[in-house]
Amino acid sequence: MSTYSVAILGSTGSIGRSALEVLEGLQRQGHQIQVTALSAGRNVALLAEQVRHWRPELAVVGDPRLVSELGEHLADLAGEMTLAAGTAGIETAARSGADIIINALVGASGLVPTVRALEAGRRVALANKEALVVGGDLVTGLARTDEKGAVPRLMPIDSEHSALFQALGAHPDTEVERLLLTASGGPFRDTPVEAFATITPEQALQHPTWNMGRKITIDSATLMNKGLEVIEAHWLFGIPVERIGIVVHPQSICHSLVEFVDGNLLAHFSVPDMRLPIQYALTYPERQTISVGARLKVEELGSLQFEPPDSDRFPALGLCREAVAEGGTMPAVLNAANEVAVAAFLDRRLAFPGITGTIRAVMDRHRTVDGPDLDDLIAAGAWAVETARVHITDEE
Amino acid sequence: MSTYSVAILGSTGSIGRSALEVLEGLQRQGHQIQVTALSAGRNVALLAEQVRHWRPELAVVGDPRLVSELGEHLADLAGEMTLAAGTAGIETAARSGADIIINALVGASGLVPTVRALEAGRRVALANKEALVVGGDLVTGLARTDEKGAVPRLMPIDSEHSALFQALGAHPDTEVERLLLTASGGPFRDTPVEAFATITPEQALQHPTWNMGRKITIDSATLMNKGLEVIEAHWLFGIPVERIGIVVHPQSICHSLVEFVDGNLLAHFSVPDMRLPIQYALTYPERQTISVGARLKVEELGSLQFEPPDSDRFPALGLCREAVAEGGTMPAVLNAANEVAVAAFLDRRLAFPGITGTIRAVMDRHRTVDGPDLDDLIAAGAWAVETARVHITDEE
Repeated sequence: MSTYSVAILGSTGSIGRSALEVLEGLQRQGHQIQVTALSAGRNVALLAEQVRHWRPELAVVGDPRLVSELGEHLADLAGEMTLAAGTAGIETAARSGADIIINALVGASGLVPTVRALEAGRRVALANKEALVVGGDLVTGLARTDEKGAVPRLMPIDSEHSALFQALGAHPDTEVERLLLTASGGPFRDTPVEAFATITPEQALQHPTWNMGRKITIDSATLMNKGLEVIEAHWLFGIPVERIGIVVHPQSICHSLVEFVDGNLLAHFSVPDMRLPIQYALTYPERQTISVGARLKVEELGSLQFEPPDSDRFPALGLCREAVAEGGTMPAVLNAANEVAVAAFLDRRLAFPGITGTIRAVMDRHRTVDGPDLDDLIAAGAWAVETARVHITDEE
Repeated sequence: MSTYSVAILGSTGSIGRSALEVLEGLQRQGHQIQVTALSAGRNVALLAEQVRHWRPELAVVGDPRLVSELGEHLADLAGEMTLAAGTAGIETAARSGADIIINALVGASGLVPTVRALEAGRRVALANKEALVVGGDLVTGLARTDEKGAVPRLMPIDSEHSALFQALGAHPDTEVERLLLTASGGPFRDTPVEAFATITPEQALQHPTWNMGRKITIDSATLMNKGLEVIEAHWLFGIPVERIGIVVHPQSICHSLVEFVDGNLLAHFSVPDMRLPIQYALTYPERQTISVGARLKVEELGSLQFEPPDSDRFPALGLCREAVAEGGTMPAVLNAANEVAVAAFLDRRLAFPGITGTIRAVMDRHRTVDGPDLDDLIAAGAWAVETARVHITDEE
């Protein structure tokens, strides 16, 4: 039996709740679990419930206006723990004395806590791909300060990147020909491009194989999620984006593949369930018996499809590759413009093709800053948010 | 660039010729290749051609009556190399001073050379699964004498076992839930059992995805090959046969899968081409750029099927599991009876269902010797050959 000490940033979201299910499962198997900190954005009721169960030293609510409400929920536990709020509180949670920090924050807000956790010498299990999209150079630089060959300080939780991490094993970069990210293709895989203008938020939120948060589900529908994953894989594994391909695989059973120079490939298979990569990141370098969720029955799989992606209908893929090629602050701008555009689409202020249209327009106006530090990245993101808002308002 | 020094037992067969193509490919890439010994059964003309090209120190023809013919072919090279014949010659080739001995012999004749090579401290790349089926305990015991953690002294060349070896990587046995061997299902995957009695050798020799030797092609049609592979995997990887499953996958793109205790699986994909596992075994622990053959285009795979096997129509699978459970000399008997029965089927002296019928009858009459040494294994094989021959003659 092992001991796992964990802090969770974003504990009330889809990934955060799955992580707590994994921890409960491991606890049922007899492992020792310690939760040092939990943070949530606005869902105070669920956060209070989680805190009551796990008794962390620190509980954080992102929205500062809600900290007194959290205090009321937990009045009888006053003195047993610290309550905090806002970005400062989240950064304190990120430096928590846990073995591993699960970063399940949504969007670019995940960057600074990732930087703080790594600066404090923590390991980070990253479900927040935007931290790497926006600040890949900075973040991977901090993660590399550990001894070579030791347990990596940055573990992916994204199912595709966990798959690649597992398939890569101990193989050196020089033996890798290509990384191949699988994509379900989203709900509009077979939708003609002429129908894209009338896609509603309700339609876009129906993902065929994964049950996820709203933002990532829309990103899956535009294939922006897959483009961001290409950038994430580039930073995590140090492979140039030209050697990172995408293959459409609607069943979401094969979660990615590594093609080696000698023509052999290793593919990762599992049921589509985020609890598997979460458990893997937590227990790495060991594998523990599956604590929650189902095993894949390979004999009963039936048919699996593998097809090329359609870059013409899904311009997000090209925008992501273009942003990485440009480098500097451009990926931060791409990501910020996307966040604003997705929110506007969900608010019915923007049509579905307007999401990538907005990103295109904002990227076209950006003057890239090379070798950006954290302040440059934050400034570029803020500029892109403002520029995207103005663009969307002008189009209305 | 690296140096590879190789001896090939069975150089004129399908695997042997593929191995020489790989060596030529590696040589074209600038690697240094040294072939120390070549042995063939009866194809003196091709052996002489190979010898003329590669100039080994030792050339062996299995059939002693053909050694003078080989000498005539190579008269102008007399003095440059040693010619030898028969099993003694093959055993000398097996002890050749190469880094790795490729054992591409057919059937149980591969056992003794494997033992001799391991006794002499050589590494063996094993395409001859019968050596492990018949003498698994003995062979793996000899292979283990090396330092723990060093490069393994027994490398699989079978595509399924190379796939498992690659997917297992450095994972300990305790993290493995199941090994899953893929099976094309052979040419009679969809043939009703009533039609089995009229299957001709010509039909059975039409394998849907692999181009192989005659004996292994018939074994693929009965699924005996897959049963033997279960036994081979058991010995190579130390996993109980109860935890080795079979999944039918007609396209032969996924060559096997490892299911880990945590619900993650790693699957090996490649084009069906024996030159890939041969190159992998030769260059291990490094991977070199593919020297001959095509890369798999995952984006263009289309549809891959995975289905449960039909043990009722293919009794060979059950016979193999039964032989391993019995242990001792029983797998040697199973294998010898199969070799005789396959030869009789190819000679039109036995119907297709008679292959497994013969094995069943011979196994039923065998008194197992536990903890057999090499002599016991050879004696049990000889007894089974004789018993199978009598059984087939009686049935005619």
